Amino acid sequence: MLTIAVDAMGADDFPRPEVEGALQAVTSLDVRVILVGKEDAVVEELDRHGRWRQLPIEVRHASEVIKMEDSAGKAVRAKKDSSIRVAARLVRDGVAQGMVSAGNTGAVMATAKMVLGLAHGVDRPALAGAFPTLSGNSAVMIDVGANVDCSANMLAQFAVMGDAYSRVIFDRKNPKVGLLSIGEEDHKGNALTHDAMAVLKTLKHINFVGNVEGRDIYTGKVDVVVCDGFVGNVALKTSEGLVDVVGKMLREHLSQTSRSKLGAFLARDAFADFKKRVDYSEYGGAPLLGLKGVCIICHGRSNPNAIKNAIRIASGFAANKISDLIATELTDWASGRAG
Amino acid sequence: MLTIAVDAMGADDFPRPEVEGALQAVTSLDVRVILVGKEDAVVEELDRHGRWRQLPIEVRHASEVIKMEDSAGKAVRAKKDSSIRVAARLVRDGVAQGMVSAGNTGAVMATAKMVLGLAHGVDRPALAGAFPTLSGNSAVMIDVGANVDCSANMLAQFAVMGDAYSRVIFDRKNPKVGLLSIGEEDHKGNALTHDAMAVLKTLKHINFVGNVEGRDIYTGKVDVVVCDGFVGNVALKTSEGLVDVVGKMLREHLSQTSRSKLGAFLARDAFADFKKRVDYSEYGGAPLLGLKGVCIICHGRSNPNAIKNAIRIASGFAANKISDLIATELTDWASGRAG
Repeated sequence: MLTIAVDAMGADDFPRPEVEGALQAVTSLDVRVILVGKEDAVVEELDRHGRWRQLPIEVRHASEVIKMEDSAGKAVRAKKDSSIRVAARLVRDGVAQGMVSAGNTGAVMATAKMVLGLAHGVDRPALAGAFPTLSGNSAVMIDVGANVDCSANMLAQFAVMGDAYSRVIFDRKNPKVGLLSIGEEDHKGNALTHDAMAVLKTLKHINFVGNVEGRDIYTGKVDVVVCDGFVGNVALKTSEGLVDVVGKMLREHLSQTSRSKLGAFLARDAFADFKKRVDYSEYGGAPLLGLKGVCIICHGRSNPNAIKNAIRIASGFAANKISDLIATELTDWASGRAG
Repeated sequence: MLTIAVDAMGADDFPRPEVEGALQAVTSLDVRVILVGKEDAVVEELDRHGRWRQLPIEVRHASEVIKMEDSAGKAVRAKKDSSIRVAARLVRDGVAQGMVSAGNTGAVMATAKMVLGLAHGVDRPALAGAFPTLSGNSAVMIDVGANVDCSANMLAQFAVMGDAYSRVIFDRKNPKVGLLSIGEEDHKGNALTHDAMAVLKTLKHINFVGNVEGRDIYTGKVDVVVCDGFVGNVALKTSEGLVDVVGKMLREHLSQTSRSKLGAFLARDAFADFKKRVDYSEYGGAPLLGLKGVCIICHGRSNPNAIKNAIRIASGFAANKISDLIATELTDWASGRAG
């Protein structure tokens, strides 16, 4: 049975979502969870949920908490016994096979990189986001914010990481990988995508289909969208903002007449169902890929369902040894280019 | 009365939208239109609409048409009597005060830049998009695709152009201008936004409010969003794709049960109303700013309403001498920096 270390002090209203998510995970999945954080607070929350001591769940004390408003760099250096750091050490030492945190994203990224180290052949870890698409399949976008200035080689490594994610978690055979640009033709794009286009074509084991546009992210035309972390983050947050605004505008319009109010009332199940389909919490969180070890970063606003799904994804990555998959692919590629 | 030259051979199903849009414009706005294109085809379409010869509308023959699939550079060099080129010459020669085209975007940009020339102080023209926001105001995003690799100085010039657009067309006093980045704090961003942050702060007459995120584009937090053309194009097309997909997913869900079907039926006016609010054709098109002259580029799929609104915006820009506004602002800024 795999063990996942869960930072219990990360979510905006920690440790409730982490504790409930962990309980849901151990009762519904074949997984053991170590909750890492201030022991008394975590145990108190666990006790509110009854007889947890028979479940495959344990608590590991960590005396410090990195806050959302802490500077990531400073917090990582100063708080050596933070719940994030202790969770990462459990993975490094083989006690756990993956970690999950809804804490300060910058601090989680820096800590995981420092404690776990990079997988062989990886220059920089990347954050991968998952999206629902019209085709019904889920698409992966990588990088969504870890690296703001990228080289063509980094984008090629992101393609390998995203390909592994799509295979392992979304069960896609031979996933289609596209490069995010501003037109489909090879010559469309900026200096980075032009360079990356040439490098991506040298990835023999990746089903690289060329440029894709922003509008293709949600159609399911490709399974993996590769981009630098600045562009990916803008696309992700633009999408979040737009979904919010469209929802609010529709509600506003639907409440204007009694007829449309009745319509909205009758249609509410469809709305709820739809919302579930685009609900980020179904995706659990964003994996930080390219490390020697599994790390899933959750939204600060994560609910128990999001934490449970992050644990599910962490255990899926660990079971499929995603770090080894990525390292093997990148080593093959590097030797092919050298040879 | 101002005169706008309309390329009649640009839209996917030209010249119908151009002719109908021009007729709508001259009958509802205080404007004269010159339709530029193959005379027989344009006159034939005009004749289908009855007695147009009494209206302030005329036809100027152009023997060549640049197609959507033509390479922009080649077409501009080879087709010296294209409808785009003839329309631009009418503006350059003062016969018209602005031009509108739904043709090949690359060819329109290259032709307008070549024939009209750059406004004083401008390094590169930029394409501006307009968006509805939750606040009810319209926001401007600039650049949405004209320049894929930008310098900090170019972003500062885009800020000046976007500010002028927001004042002239959306009647915003002292528009709030934000720099699109991946976090609000000044230090968040990539190499370009860091450099641009410093330069934007030197624009004394611009109400620069710092970084904004993708999610802020649609909230109305700022009136102008400044970014390089690669990022802007990705944000724009991601939004278009997402709105399409959300609409399709909602329709799919709403048709699943008879109860939600009834709900959708009753709510349809609200949907129609909402769709109008986010309808790009209300914005007419994307102005190419920074030229000595007014040029509005419309979507190939433009309907007559989009063409009419583009004519309205072109005439608004011309009446307010937007090119002079931009040149004056940039000259002041340059002398302030030199002094």
